[in-house]
Amino acid sequence: MKTIAITLGDAAGIGPEIIAAAWEQLQAIPDCKPIIYGHPEILRRAAKLRNAPTNIECLSCCSDDVLSVPPGVIDARAGRSAYQAVCRSIDDAKAGVVDAIVTAPIHKAALHQAGYLYPGHTEIFAEQCGADNFAMMLYLGGNGIPIQRETPDAGNLALEIASPYGLAVVHVTLHTAMRTIFEQITVESVLAKIRLAAGFMRRIMGQDASRLPQIGVCSLNPHAGEEGLFGDEEIRIIQPAIQKALAEGLQVAGPKPADTIMLDAREGRYDAVVAMFHDQGHIALKLLGMYRAVNITLGLPIIRTSVAHGTAFDKAWQGIASPGSLIEAVRVAVRLTKTSSGPSAVPNAG
Amino acid sequence: MKTIAITLGDAAGIGPEIIAAAWEQLQAIPDCKPIIYGHPEILRRAAKLRNAPTNIECLSCCSDDVLSVPPGVIDARAGRSAYQAVCRSIDDAKAGVVDAIVTAPIHKAALHQAGYLYPGHTEIFAEQCGADNFAMMLYLGGNGIPIQRETPDAGNLALEIASPYGLAVVHVTLHTAMRTIFEQITVESVLAKIRLAAGFMRRIMGQDASRLPQIGVCSLNPHAGEEGLFGDEEIRIIQPAIQKALAEGLQVAGPKPADTIMLDAREGRYDAVVAMFHDQGHIALKLLGMYRAVNITLGLPIIRTSVAHGTAFDKAWQGIASPGSLIEAVRVAVRLTKTSSGPSAVPNAG
Repeated sequence: MKTIAITLGDAAGIGPEIIAAAWEQLQAIPDCKPIIYGHPEILRRAAKLRNAPTNIECLSCCSDDVLSVPPGVIDARAGRSAYQAVCRSIDDAKAGVVDAIVTAPIHKAALHQAGYLYPGHTEIFAEQCGADNFAMMLYLGGNGIPIQRETPDAGNLALEIASPYGLAVVHVTLHTAMRTIFEQITVESVLAKIRLAAGFMRRIMGQDASRLPQIGVCSLNPHAGEEGLFGDEEIRIIQPAIQKALAEGLQVAGPKPADTIMLDAREGRYDAVVAMFHDQGHIALKLLGMYRAVNITLGLPIIRTSVAHGTAFDKAWQGIASPGSLIEAVRVAVRLTKTSSGPSAVPNAG
Repeated sequence: MKTIAITLGDAAGIGPEIIAAAWEQLQAIPDCKPIIYGHPEILRRAAKLRNAPTNIECLSCCSDDVLSVPPGVIDARAGRSAYQAVCRSIDDAKAGVVDAIVTAPIHKAALHQAGYLYPGHTEIFAEQCGADNFAMMLYLGGNGIPIQRETPDAGNLALEIASPYGLAVVHVTLHTAMRTIFEQITVESVLAKIRLAAGFMRRIMGQDASRLPQIGVCSLNPHAGEEGLFGDEEIRIIQPAIQKALAEGLQVAGPKPADTIMLDAREGRYDAVVAMFHDQGHIALKLLGMYRAVNITLGLPIIRTSVAHGTAFDKAWQGIASPGSLIEAVRVAVRLTKTSSGPSAVPNAG
């Protein structure tokens, strides 16, 4: 049984209620023992809102002033409370008390108002774990079994990822102005992300997978640059990075136009896609699975996954937010606790 | 009855066979009289391949040397033949012999080998029509009736555009290197595309629509720039362009992050999206409807629509290519012949 710490997130956002709404499904995940980190009274209110059990196990680790936070607004008390829960979960993961952490969304401005000047969750984890080479990955889980399309075109009318292993997306550049991406896209940075994507999917696919992960690399420019007509980064940077990755024995194809690579990825022809910038990966993954996508931090000594959406203040505490991404994040966390410790890595969950 | 000229495209590509495969469905479109422009023997071969009727009406307007072109390769004879059919269709449209033109894909390199140095179809049309202010638009048709999602989250598991009017996407920059988009994104160019999108959707929605088209404008930078943290084009350029459009009485929202605007557009909250660059629009539209999307040239004195895909040499003449986009292109062309001539504009086709 793997113990999964789930932090409550910003109390003014949708975190508490999606945890409450997910609770029964979380308990049904094989080998999963979920424990909520946060303020039990906030969780109790959320459980009442969603008609969920009110006896959900919750480790109390937040100040009581969070109880006065109104829904859907930026509040320093909610930021502090969310921070306290994250820190306690990291301490417990480092001490081996929990096997993995799954985080519900926090609000950056609330965090900042509380005096914690991190860009987001990931940097809190990196600092407290002493990690300096970390990266964020988006992952859309498969169904554990391959999807057979009835006709060659059927995939064009489907959202499901055809591969049983799902689809990972790693970005070479992410939260940065578009004007600044060009200096960040180098042979080294592209190669590093190819390696990261391949390494992660090897863990997901397990040692008994009959094949290596197939990695597709996006072009930067439209139509992969059309032989240099629309930009030369494909020729100067992306192709050489792919050549180096191939020389290392990785299975890599590209640079491919980003609008068609995602169609091929949906059909299972790639296990992971390396995107050059934020929108290339996010537009596709959100359309394919806004409420199933999972955020994973790589490069930490502990396992951490997260929902792929934000606090959604505009619909918080209305009882309508979907718990799908949270359930997926817990499933993936459980799977990673197994694949990190040995050859028992068989993809068996969403 | 509207006469629609359909050009055969590059004979080595999938054009001839998708036309043959589409033929019976094309004839079932209300008020549509399709006529193929190309070489009748190429069409006859394609009809045989797809078990389609071999008596399809075809206006012969190509040299016989196209008959020796092998499938799936770049060939000057195929480029010349495709060009001949397009020119004849333009002449006939200008003369009023046909009401609209729908083009099957041509291959740029074949066109160039034949000595016609156009970047693509659109520029041939613009030159021969004497148009200097033209633009390309992608359009994904609706079902004619609004789609009601059963739950708030159901749209996240759907590909269909919820609006009965479908979804149009216009790009501020398109076939250009990413490094060069910044100089092309100006208040004037963004405003021009907002106007274009609104004008087109007014035609599609018809004069009896109960509301004005809702236009969503993408941000250039991730997270809409996060108040200037990730770039200032939203503040300097896109917001002022939207203000001007609002002052003109248009219904416009934005700048919105491109990864979430497409989710809202799928749910019908926007009738058109203005994208800042190629991938923002193409990744979304291809995932939502690779074989239903239609390409429309605006700013011509004649009506021209096109499939949204290419010649697909890798699967040409294998009998597997989908005719979906072609059928949609013909439907939209028929609809535009009606809305351009008066108030009879009711959205009634896919």
